[in-house]
Amino acid sequence: MTVVLKLGGSVVTDKDREETVDGESLDAAAAAIGDAVDDLDGLVVVHGGGSFGHPNAADYGVSTTEGTRDADGVLAIHGAMKTLNKFVLRRLREHDVPAVPVHPLSAASRDTGGELTLPVQQVRTLLGEGFVPVLHGDVIGHTGEGVTVVSGDELVVELAASVDADRVGLCSAVPGVLDNDDAVISRIEAYEDVAEVLGASDATDVTGGMAGKVRALLELDVEASIFDLDSVGPFLAGDRVGTTID
Amino acid sequence: MTVVLKLGGSVVTDKDREETVDGESLDAAAAAIGDAVDDLDGLVVVHGGGSFGHPNAADYGVSTTEGTRDADGVLAIHGAMKTLNKFVLRRLREHDVPAVPVHPLSAASRDTGGELTLPVQQVRTLLGEGFVPVLHGDVIGHTGEGVTVVSGDELVVELAASVDADRVGLCSAVPGVLDNDDAVISRIEAYEDVAEVLGASDATDVTGGMAGKVRALLELDVEASIFDLDSVGPFLAGDRVGTTID
Repeated sequence: MTVVLKLGGSVVTDKDREETVDGESLDAAAAAIGDAVDDLDGLVVVHGGGSFGHPNAADYGVSTTEGTRDADGVLAIHGAMKTLNKFVLRRLREHDVPAVPVHPLSAASRDTGGELTLPVQQVRTLLGEGFVPVLHGDVIGHTGEGVTVVSGDELVVELAASVDADRVGLCSAVPGVLDNDDAVISRIEAYEDVAEVLGASDATDVTGGMAGKVRALLELDVEASIFDLDSVGPFLAGDRVGTTID
Repeated sequence: MTVVLKLGGSVVTDKDREETVDGESLDAAAAAIGDAVDDLDGLVVVHGGGSFGHPNAADYGVSTTEGTRDADGVLAIHGAMKTLNKFVLRRLREHDVPAVPVHPLSAASRDTGGELTLPVQQVRTLLGEGFVPVLHGDVIGHTGEGVTVVSGDELVVELAASVDADRVGLCSAVPGVLDNDDAVISRIEAYEDVAEVLGASDATDVTGGMAGKVRALLELDVEASIFDLDSVGPFLAGDRVGTTID
């Protein structure tokens, strides 16, 4: 089984303190991955930014659609995400996960319409050789805009199709998509199922909102799940956890 | 004019002292690039490893053909090259070059036959937005081998064709290809011209040797030059310097 696992920025960092890793949560996630990785055919990890990257992106006015041509801005945002990536890699290595970095700025780009291109032969090659490629939210070249943000969620959607993933998991700060009584909705098959709780607007909040996640995951050919840190291990072991989107 | 410029590892590092930048030479190269960059349509910089990367590669027994599947080895070699890349970027920024990193491990791979694939849409997009992408020798996924080394010279050859470079320059420790009297050979049009001084063997020394450089540059559709640090400025200004290979 090949799995794409996203670790949300709110899981691996302390969102309230700039550039601060949530060491305990990151370690728990890395331990769960370390326990499961040998039983998988392949695993790609993607992590968000949380308290890394976002402050710099805000400083330079950069989003997924608004860019910058200031090289200092690129280096600040990209550098912050690489710092977080280094922490993630280190924890994964401590749990014997053969993790190696794949930085989106070095690989991906957007055209004038904002459409993302992410070549994946390098990811597939690393997977085939037994490595666990670790990607992350980043800035990437965007024709007409300089660089713009690419979110971890966008990368997950791209990767799911292109590495022939059997399962996709998004580990977030909440145990799944919640209904109006804060109970986890176990299954979503169409956006209308949850439009009432997530909002019916056609918002394209690709950088983290739950509505955007659900919309993007509904478009995948493969089953996706949204769950919290406690369910990383069970998810990787093949259990159905949190909210399943199919 | 679009230019691909390689800064040899022996130019930007002190080859005799492990992981030591040659600050003076690097600064001179960065200053020459800073003076010229605004007059170019596009510039891609590639740097070698010198005293970075090579010691780690030797420790893990990794070359362009012999690989490793040890993630610690990948992180050690790749990490050393990223450290050097950071120094190079910092100096370029000090001279107002809009330099941004493109790490080959994140983008490139080799197939079972060792053939290199380097997608370049990200490089072209960054170029088009006015950035100077800076690549470097690295390790990359290699089907059947784990990861192997990709040399800066290989990257230059790939990039020259794919970014439609008008000129290619290799800044090395010597002022050009030298004849038996140590005089610079001004023009090489076929390998037979220099087989006597470079050796007639079909050696595939892609990681730095002059014979390999000349062979690779002869295969390009575009004119290439080999020169030393003093000629970076004149080369970027359009002068014919060192040895021209066409």
